Amino acid sequence: MRKFNFSSGPSVLPEPVLRKAQVAVWDWDDTGIGILEHSHRGPEFTALCERAERLVREVGDVPDEYAILFLQGGASAQFHMVPMNFLAAGATADYCVTGTWGQKAIGEAKKLGQVHVACSSEASNFAAIPSADEVHWSSAPVYGHFTSNETIHGVQWAAPPPPPPGGAPLICDASSDLFSRPLEISRYGMVYAGAQKNLGPSGTVLALARKDLIERGSRALPTMLQYRTWASDHSLYNTPPTFGIYLVAEVLEWVRAEGGIAAMQARAVERASLVYDFLDQSRLFHGHARADSRSLMNITFRATTPALEAEFLAGADALGLANLKGHRSVGGMRASMYNAFPVAGARALVEYLDEFERAHR
Amino acid sequence: MRKFNFSSGPSVLPEPVLRKAQVAVWDWDDTGIGILEHSHRGPEFTALCERAERLVREVGDVPDEYAILFLQGGASAQFHMVPMNFLAAGATADYCVTGTWGQKAIGEAKKLGQVHVACSSEASNFAAIPSADEVHWSSAPVYGHFTSNETIHGVQWAAPPPPPPGGAPLICDASSDLFSRPLEISRYGMVYAGAQKNLGPSGTVLALARKDLIERGSRALPTMLQYRTWASDHSLYNTPPTFGIYLVAEVLEWVRAEGGIAAMQARAVERASLVYDFLDQSRLFHGHARADSRSLMNITFRATTPALEAEFLAGADALGLANLKGHRSVGGMRASMYNAFPVAGARALVEYLDEFERAHR
Repeated sequence: MRKFNFSSGPSVLPEPVLRKAQVAVWDWDDTGIGILEHSHRGPEFTALCERAERLVREVGDVPDEYAILFLQGGASAQFHMVPMNFLAAGATADYCVTGTWGQKAIGEAKKLGQVHVACSSEASNFAAIPSADEVHWSSAPVYGHFTSNETIHGVQWAAPPPPPPGGAPLICDASSDLFSRPLEISRYGMVYAGAQKNLGPSGTVLALARKDLIERGSRALPTMLQYRTWASDHSLYNTPPTFGIYLVAEVLEWVRAEGGIAAMQARAVERASLVYDFLDQSRLFHGHARADSRSLMNITFRATTPALEAEFLAGADALGLANLKGHRSVGGMRASMYNAFPVAGARALVEYLDEFERAHR
Repeated sequence: MRKFNFSSGPSVLPEPVLRKAQVAVWDWDDTGIGILEHSHRGPEFTALCERAERLVREVGDVPDEYAILFLQGGASAQFHMVPMNFLAAGATADYCVTGTWGQKAIGEAKKLGQVHVACSSEASNFAAIPSADEVHWSSAPVYGHFTSNETIHGVQWAAPPPPPPGGAPLICDASSDLFSRPLEISRYGMVYAGAQKNLGPSGTVLALARKDLIERGSRALPTMLQYRTWASDHSLYNTPPTFGIYLVAEVLEWVRAEGGIAAMQARAVERASLVYDFLDQSRLFHGHARADSRSLMNITFRATTPALEAEFLAGADALGLANLKGHRSVGGMRASMYNAFPVAGARALVEYLDEFERAHR
């Protein structure tokens, strides 16, 4: 019996995709070879890579001016690759800091060059996303970086920050909300995401990057730290995480069959509204994020006392509502519900919240 | 029907491991959550990581002075991480170049500092491993690097090169032979390997590195490019390729159950001897590597004409002997047979070689 898995990532995958993967692990598409065992240079895997790219373009509405890269090292590896590629000596890169991941991103950039904090919501313990007029870009940044959804704090930009000055590219860590809502890619120079939330398993990163931006990146770097290497070799410079790319393709196929990103967004709104609506009327529970900054992916919430939180979490586990414990920097509870998370799971959570509150009135 | 898969990597995995993985993808160890969907911070996955480390120590006979790292980016990412960590400005690193992978390793090091070629077998198109007295270390290298098995050329060091002077660490890319034969780890400062040959799937790298060596690495690097980050966080600084680590643990469990590395070595000798013995008496086929430099993992061989090679490969495919085409830099055929490759597959190859030769006499 599979539980409702509220893990913040790695996280729940679509069940039809898992059923297909079970077969593919033994013998993929009647090739006589399991998906994990196929050569990345063979015709079957080459075709899979092309299919994965096509699906990203189609499902994500990504035009040809953007390269599609399957990277490794998690989104965290982009925290150094982005400044290594684009932050030259003497230049300044701007960062919006709205949570732990934004802090980590700027931390790595600081090691590599000059940075400017365009906005920070640290004073609120990252409970709020700055408004457009609270974003203060520097005069001539080489890029502006932000984190569209902060997994730990449960805040999400409803719309991206205003464009940086001088046509500088906006670069977005969209690890926890890529393809959960429509993406106006033309607003961005680059968007990247660890796959393990909305797209697939951990160990694979999907990046969409303007080809002309990639070309402007430093050439003095080791080969694999240059984005151009990944772009010109279609992510096949060396052996890629083949199973990860396979699963991303299968997940995107599933997204398309389910109605595309619009359908994913509708489900996210439905799931999150169920929980937020409950929290808004509760006397025992309250959300962490400010109402206008709430994430549709990660709902962070507290009970009135730590003892109640512990009791709530123990009861959740017993009911098969797994991985609801919040990150220590916020405390309490966190319900992560990505693309593959069923609406029924959100309903089950609200039922339990309601029951728990009635029992403790 | 599963084929005999001679792929050079990703490559064949033990069938009992695949059968377990099929179950685990849906519901791992009755946790109600699939292995791909488990949080890397949860108690189950944390225990798995500890088990994976224990298995590496036990199966590989790796003492506590060595850290066990599960890295990403393939062995190719180590081509820059090694010099970034250990090749300081003004210092020299020494490289033994015995094939394509050694060339790539030294190529990245050259971008980052001063290198010295301790030996090269390029003149023979990498058909031979230099003898101990053909290895000429520089006077005071910071490390000596070599590739224990060259996947493309099919040559393998029977024993590591002599130790570099001044107690400098020997660093080994053992991507295609780690744990296929006993490893005297005390001879090395660091050994690393992409998992997709003898250990698991692509996307995961296993490194064994002396803790004091890691500590001497540069501190000026981005966090994730420092080996110490991986060592101090037991490879959990950020989200690891969870499924890859799971599979490496399962493969090592299988290796242990089959009799450990000694049994793997015996099988490798048996498989390779079957094929080399045939090649040595053949008039139609001949091996690429010099007899004393032959790889037990990758057997590179040619037929007398390219037309015969094409015919041989087409026939092999029809018989379910898959992925025998050689790399273009050597041409002809390559039979890669790693730990999980069944001896029956080597026998099937020899039968077909023999039959083909009789038909073309």
